[in-house]
Amino acid sequence: MRAPARPVGDLLVENIGELCTPRGFTAPRGREAMGRVEVTEGAAVLVKAGRIEYAGPAAGLPAQAKAQAHEGRLARLDAGGRAVVPGFVDSHTHFVFAGHRAEEFLWRAEGLPYMEIHKRGGGIARSVTATRAASQEDLLALGRARLKTMLSLGVTTVEGKSGYGLDLETELRQLAVMAELDREGPVEVVPTFLGPHSIPGEFKGRPADYVDFVVKEVLPAVKAQGAAKFCDIFCEKGIFELEDSRRYLETAASLGFGLKVHADEIVALGGAGLAAELGAASADHLLKASEKDIGLMAKAGVVAGCLPLTAFTLREPYANARAMIDAGCALALASDLNPGSCYSQSIPLIFAIGVLYLGLSLPETLTALTLGGAASLGLESRLGSLEAGKDGDLLVLDAPSMAFLPYHAGMNLVRTVVKAGRIVV
Amino acid sequence: MRAPARPVGDLLVENIGELCTPRGFTAPRGREAMGRVEVTEGAAVLVKAGRIEYAGPAAGLPAQAKAQAHEGRLARLDAGGRAVVPGFVDSHTHFVFAGHRAEEFLWRAEGLPYMEIHKRGGGIARSVTATRAASQEDLLALGRARLKTMLSLGVTTVEGKSGYGLDLETELRQLAVMAELDREGPVEVVPTFLGPHSIPGEFKGRPADYVDFVVKEVLPAVKAQGAAKFCDIFCEKGIFELEDSRRYLETAASLGFGLKVHADEIVALGGAGLAAELGAASADHLLKASEKDIGLMAKAGVVAGCLPLTAFTLREPYANARAMIDAGCALALASDLNPGSCYSQSIPLIFAIGVLYLGLSLPETLTALTLGGAASLGLESRLGSLEAGKDGDLLVLDAPSMAFLPYHAGMNLVRTVVKAGRIVV
Repeated sequence: MRAPARPVGDLLVENIGELCTPRGFTAPRGREAMGRVEVTEGAAVLVKAGRIEYAGPAAGLPAQAKAQAHEGRLARLDAGGRAVVPGFVDSHTHFVFAGHRAEEFLWRAEGLPYMEIHKRGGGIARSVTATRAASQEDLLALGRARLKTMLSLGVTTVEGKSGYGLDLETELRQLAVMAELDREGPVEVVPTFLGPHSIPGEFKGRPADYVDFVVKEVLPAVKAQGAAKFCDIFCEKGIFELEDSRRYLETAASLGFGLKVHADEIVALGGAGLAAELGAASADHLLKASEKDIGLMAKAGVVAGCLPLTAFTLREPYANARAMIDAGCALALASDLNPGSCYSQSIPLIFAIGVLYLGLSLPETLTALTLGGAASLGLESRLGSLEAGKDGDLLVLDAPSMAFLPYHAGMNLVRTVVKAGRIVV
Repeated sequence: MRAPARPVGDLLVENIGELCTPRGFTAPRGREAMGRVEVTEGAAVLVKAGRIEYAGPAAGLPAQAKAQAHEGRLARLDAGGRAVVPGFVDSHTHFVFAGHRAEEFLWRAEGLPYMEIHKRGGGIARSVTATRAASQEDLLALGRARLKTMLSLGVTTVEGKSGYGLDLETELRQLAVMAELDREGPVEVVPTFLGPHSIPGEFKGRPADYVDFVVKEVLPAVKAQGAAKFCDIFCEKGIFELEDSRRYLETAASLGFGLKVHADEIVALGGAGLAAELGAASADHLLKASEKDIGLMAKAGVVAGCLPLTAFTLREPYANARAMIDAGCALALASDLNPGSCYSQSIPLIFAIGVLYLGLSLPETLTALTLGGAASLGLESRLGSLEAGKDGDLLVLDAPSMAFLPYHAGMNLVRTVVKAGRIVV
């Protein structure tokens, strides 16, 4: 992976009514770490060259910084007594795609069976056709617009997956688009290769052959270009079952990629257990994950990724996020933005669902959208909390306390966004 | 009611990809009327002095308008091939209040029983204390900010209720604030008096005495000032039961007010039936309304007001909106924005819940947020659809079709807002 020279800034954020942040430079595993959000009244944050130098009570601010700010040699942001939280990390999205599937959404809402939707031309194949046909420039424009919307909702770091190409060329194009958007900034984009997202028409009924193709021809190319940090697979009955998934993931690991798994969304196949066995960074969806596999994930330090907007949209029971934390997992909540099962980036709705329907406390929900998301991407030492040594990614809310995040249900409260010490919204 | 000289404009909206609108100048009662949304591709809308003169295929546009536009004598809005829908009518809100109840929201989310919340100082009494203490200027600023947010979500007409004063002075102050905000525009505000919203401390345990006070001292003052179009009551077991509700509503009707009823939210008390008997404009909430009472509402032409964001926030089963339409009612969907049970104005979330969880079709959901909402306020002859003779209140969506309203779940798609022919967002 190339490490772009990200633009950084110096900034003093003053007059913070409540500074609300998880703590720690490691994944927040289990109840205590997930529930630990520190609230400091009358706080300030000092960012130098993109990194936090101080975050805490205003009285403790280094005297030098105060003097610099006073003399106009340091940019200042007056939070006006409002609440400040870390920038949100959306750790599971499919934001680079062409076309849409609005009709399919309505068909599904009306109760049309999956096979009938498929017959009418719905399903992922539709997005694959549209994405294959789209130029890199088209995909850049589409992805850029989506990132802009996400940034306005406070998302400063986004994971994005390929997987709407299912061929060498388009998969690489999707990843190239993410690299370019990451360079453009201000949103930081973490690219994940998801070649085995579905079985393309060319390999109909031959998932093992498609995995062979991916393993032999695509993975090495992705590796050679340094185009992805993680490799992911849709491990599900009738698509990529455990044997094919293991083969793909082991190859990816041997090439040095981090691992992610779409696991146990539709049936309890054991994808979560496989993720634990292979030491994946995260296993996501997990609606049907077994208690045993969740225990294995906790032991192995696999971050549990729950995607409540997808369950909301599909009218499925939510994943048991409560049990995952209680078992000792770090939890990440993410949008799963995609054109099919969940065309939504609504962080506000995730907050409301987290507190109202997932049985999570507000601190747990906030941690899952910040430090938990960062841990899902292996970035917990740099992102996800506001403390000295971390990146200066923070949000000023249009509210006096973090309680408004779920309370003002479904409404965007983000007033100002700071990425690496620069005011970007 | 005074009729303010609302600012109006001339405007030609061109290049509309899909013009999507209910049809009719009467309340959309029953399946056929609720489901009738006309979609015209390649459309244009001509507004003159705030009124729609033409809405339909661009080819049918009066030649004179085309010439005027061509010569620069008529303001033009290029919809860029996007979808256009009528401005949304939010027909049930409590948007004028001071203070907040964020802690109470979290207590409830954690499962704290109502009585314990009450002991800790939660409940409506808290909003009453804060609103009584707020100046008219404070309330104006708070209300103005909330209307601005609603306008950005496409709401061009809002009903607002008093009911956080529960005394003569504060109730009148709330209504005066609404009148002032209506004068300011651009959002049109329809004021409803809701003195019997709760029993104030001064009348603890004596609901009948409080209703006496309202009927004898407050209603005449509201009438004298022309401060409200509707009168509403929280008709619920243990608060204002049927006898008190009837007495209040009959007095209000005799003074010439339209009637609204908070009915059958918590138990099936019969408020919906009472609304039907008295010919109310609407009965709202209706989570527990009986089949019989819904039938009576349909027969009497009482608009059914469902408030799904409140059920979502309270984790209650949604009202049976499907049955209400099927029984022959006109349906209005509204936000119920208030500081306690539902601090949300999210029209996008209403669209998603309508289509996914209320068993409504997209046309029915759109009608409920436009023509149905207008009917709930007795404004169906002037608002709620885009056809010649109606007000020029419309929205350009950042989408090619209305299907995106629920599909892009929870996300605001409103790009441009036009109120009475003037571009206001």
